[in-house]
Parts: sequence; structure tokens; C-alpha cells
Amino acid sequence: MTERVGAYAPGSIGNVGPGFDILGMAIAGRGDTVIIERRAELGVIIKDAGHADLPTDPELHTAAIAAMEVIKRAGAQDEVGIELTVRKGLSLTAGQGGSAASAVAAAVATNGLLHNPLWPTGLVGACLVAEERVSGRCIDNVAASLLGGLVLVRSERPLEIVKLPVPPNLRMVLALPDYQLETAVGRTCIPDSVPLGIAMHQAAQVGALVAACYQRDLGLLGRAIDDRIAEPSRAHLLPGFREAKAAALAAGALGVSVSGSGPTAFALAHSETSGESIAEAMANAYRRAGFDCATRVTHVDHLGARLVPEASVVSQET
Amino acid sequence: MTERVGAYAPGSIGNVGPGFDILGMAIAGRGDTVIIERRAELGVIIKDAGHADLPTDPELHTAAIAAMEVIKRAGAQDEVGIELTVRKGLSLTAGQGGSAASAVAAAVATNGLLHNPLWPTGLVGACLVAEERVSGRCIDNVAASLLGGLVLVRSERPLEIVKLPVPPNLRMVLALPDYQLETAVGRTCIPDSVPLGIAMHQAAQVGALVAACYQRDLGLLGRAIDDRIAEPSRAHLLPGFREAKAAALAAGALGVSVSGSGPTAFALAHSETSGESIAEAMANAYRRAGFDCATRVTHVDHLGARLVPEASVVSQET
Repeated sequence: MTERVGAYAPGSIGNVGPGFDILGMAIAGRGDTVIIERRAELGVIIKDAGHADLPTDPELHTAAIAAMEVIKRAGAQDEVGIELTVRKGLSLTAGQGGSAASAVAAAVATNGLLHNPLWPTGLVGACLVAEERVSGRCIDNVAASLLGGLVLVRSERPLEIVKLPVPPNLRMVLALPDYQLETAVGRTCIPDSVPLGIAMHQAAQVGALVAACYQRDLGLLGRAIDDRIAEPSRAHLLPGFREAKAAALAAGALGVSVSGSGPTAFALAHSETSGESIAEAMANAYRRAGFDCATRVTHVDHLGARLVPEASVVSQET
Repeated sequence: MTERVGAYAPGSIGNVGPGFDILGMAIAGRGDTVIIERRAELGVIIKDAGHADLPTDPELHTAAIAAMEVIKRAGAQDEVGIELTVRKGLSLTAGQGGSAASAVAAAVATNGLLHNPLWPTGLVGACLVAEERVSGRCIDNVAASLLGGLVLVRSERPLEIVKLPVPPNLRMVLALPDYQLETAVGRTCIPDSVPLGIAMHQAAQVGALVAACYQRDLGLLGRAIDDRIAEPSRAHLLPGFREAKAAALAAGALGVSVSGSGPTAFALAHSETSGESIAEAMANAYRRAGFDCATRVTHVDHLGARLVPEASVVSQET
């Protein structure tokens, strides 16, 4: 009987450019890891919540809720009890899909403990239950973190996710200014309805972004990062973003937008070298606006969530 | 000096599925042909308007307006006068892009007469001037008829059109019930704004449709024909459409929606044989609803508008 399983799930960009709620991209380099250990008693308890600000009550922690949902969906709630250790590689407030990654890692690890009864629809469903309770639906982040790569959520019910090819040269720049923004606050700014012309322009950008991925056309990909719904609604909550965007574009970024609800801004670059220049330009712009800023140049995580031998957990996080 | 040039432009489906105003598909088998002949006097006159219901005043005929625009954009308005002969292969009221095809054929023929100074942005622009004056903007139809294939209009200003690959087996069924619907009336039904969730669902379908084209995934292509903006707003103007759609899907159609503003309905089929069954099912459904119905099974026109030797004009139309 398996007694202990660990899983790693990468962070992700949600709302990629024009793809509000429908496009997510898994990002290499940082993620959350959850270790599941079987225990004699039923139910789920938290051994380590992963961060001082995260709840130890399993009803309130996204990883524990997702794990419990997997157990329920597998019909094992009268047989299996577990305890969770969460190791956060992602910030709680960056807008880099940390909450989704914790849920996904917990779901995948629990699923592994149970010999993988669910895949992938049930796992997405379990994570969405957790995300809805804790931080709002983020199906784009959940799908990207679980499946890896760049994903398009065509339909939520029934669930259909299309994994898109990512041009191999593509580099992603993440710039995180040192202020915080609650996901829930960011979301309330989004309008309930949009003018028809804006809606169809946005749809055209999503179509163009998909075409660009298949054609490996980085120029088109960048032009398609033209979000006229979420970004304009949120920009006033993100001091320095407009300046950082302008600086990134001037430094050669193919496209720039907000990751999830922010405050992380992301830029697309055609090479590592270009990415480094863009990162520097963005950091300088945020600093001129009065904010320190952490940047990194990275790329897509193509694998998504995976089981990890416990010994490798630490290196997976870095 | 070239004295006489003819061009053929195929009909097209506008508003393909979820792609209201942004996705157009050129359709093989029927189109409009325009013959341009140089004359001594400046300006544009109409020798044959192509149909008894079409105006002979060049200020009011889409082909003549487009031809004049091409001459102006080429800077030749003080040098060149022409007369037009329009041969309509497309209905005036079917919603199969007939108006756009006349404008495109005239623009391409005139451009040919002038040794092709414009391509393609200027030609699209010239046709849009004509379409705006006569029947409303139909950039999706214009772009498809001009360029052929399935096109995504990423941006109108600046103009950027992405030509998508079409899965080779795809067959299109067109079903035209015997009632008429003015494009302008159809357009007034479309809401000015849409709920955010609908807008992003529509965007996801456009993205999925594009992915399906690159992946040659006819099932996904069919599922992406899920228009929640235009089709629900117009269905009440199209008696028998809902029944014909249900019949087509039951007969194996991959997806069904309205061509342009209607009344033509189109269905996607995975083969010629399946297309024939779907056509029969749609015709029967319209007949049960009290309307005669003409159907044809066809495919994408990959070439778009082309210059034609005058001798072949008649065969190009059939």
C-alpha cells in the first residue's frame, strides 16, 4: 500500500492576453509541491500549510479541499485518510497561479496515492471546487498547471481543454512589483458586459494567438496580446504597469499584459537575451514609479503537474 | 494598353459560427464575375448591372463603387474611365456574400486593368467603401472572397488577415429556404453589448476553431461552431432554422449555423456522402416548416478572387 506521494505543479499565467478566463500558460521554474501521507484516521488534515498566512483548517486550504474532493470523487472517503505537507514555491499574492498550483499538486498527489482513478476531467473538477471556495474560479490556471504548456479552455461543462503548441524560442518575462492586490478585488473591476465590437475584437485576438502558436509566428503572437477587456479595467489598480508595459515594448517585447489579476506583469520575448533586456526595462520602470520589482526570464513548463520522488522535491521548487 | 479585364470572386460564408464579423469562408461553385472595359471618358459607368433589381447608377452599385475606389487609390482618376459588366452567379438575398463578391470581382478586375497597383490591403479597403455604402460592412465576406479559404480578420485598422488551413475532407452544405431577409434587418437584431461570460465563451470557440483547422480535427471544428451572440439573436427571423439545424446534426453534421445574416444555413460535413444526407435532412426540415429549400454540397474555395480570360467567364459561374 502506497503510504506517501509527492507532486509538483508549476505556477501559471492566467488570463493570457486576450484570453480572460480561457487561456492559461504553465511557467517553468517555480511551483508548489504537496506531499500526501496516508494516516489511519479518515479525512484530511494539514501537517504543514506551506506558509504562515495560509490556514491550517483543511476546510479553508485549497490543497486540502482539492485532496478531499479527489478522495470523494474516487469513492474512497470511507477508506482513506491523509495528511498534507505543502511546500510553497510560489507567492500567495503575485498572480502567478500559486493557489491553483497548490490545489493541482494536492489533487495529483492524492490521485497518485489512490492509483490514479481520475484523469484529467475529475482532477480539474476537484481543483475547481477548491479554487471556488478559496479564491474564485481560475480554470485557466488550474488547466495550465495540471496539463502544462499553453491551454485553451473551450468549454467548462463539459470540460474540453485544447493544448496549444508553443513556439520553441518563446521566452516569458515575469515582473512582480512589491505591492499586493487581492484576486477578488481585481476581479470586481471587470465589467459584467462588454460592447459587441470589443467582444469580437477580443475573440479575433484569441483566434490569432492560436494561429500564431501553430505557425510559430512570434510577431503575430505578440500582436494578439491585445486585451481590451480585463487589462484596461485593472490598469488603475496596478501602479507602474502602463509605464512598465511601454518600457518592455520599447525594449523589444512582443507583447505585454497582466498575469491573472496581477500584480505580476508578463512580457513575451523572442530570445533569452531579449528577455533579459526587457526584464531590466520593466524593473527600471517600476522603480521609477516608486516600486521595487523582482523579475525573472523563463519559459513555458510543458510537462505540467507531475509526481515527484520526495528526494527531488526541494530541487523542483527552485 | 489593356482594354478589357475580367475577374471572378467566389461567394462566401460570413460570420462563420462564433466568428461574428471576424471569420469568413470562401465557397466554391458560385461567384460573381465583373468585366471591366476601358473607355475614352473618365469615370465609371455600368453597362450591365447583373440583375434587374440592381441599380444602374454607379454611385449605388457595389461593383462600380469598388472599381471607382480602386481607380482613386491608384491615383488614376484623371486618366482612366471604365465601364462594367456584372454577371451575378450569386443571389442578391441569400446571405452567401454576393454583394461582397461583386465588389471584390470589380476591384480585382480594375486593379488588373491598372497593372495591379493595390494588393491586398488597398483592395479590401476599396471593397469596404462599397460595402459600407450599399449593404453594411462585411469585412469577413470581403476578405474571404478576395483571399480565398477560411480567413480570420485579426484587425481592421491596420488591416491584418490570417488565412487558416482548412481540413481537406471538409465539406460545406448550404441550405437556402425560399424566403428573404434583409441584411440590415438581420443586423439590427444583434445586441450592442454581450455578457462577459458569453463574450469569452465566444472567444474560446474562435480559438478552438482555429486550433481545429491546424490540427485537422473535424470534431473540434464542429463543436466550436457554437455561436451564442448572433445566432440566438437572429433565429426568430429565420423560420425553420432551428428545425433544420436539429435535423442536420441528427444526420451527422459536425456543426450548423447561419451564413452571414441568413437566410442561408450552413452545415459542416466530414465527407461528400455525409454532406448529401445532411442536405436532404435540412431540405426536409424546411419543407416541413412550410418553405421550399435549395441545397448544395460544396467545399472551400481556396483561390479566392482571380482574373479570368473572358471566354471562361460563363463556366466559372456555374
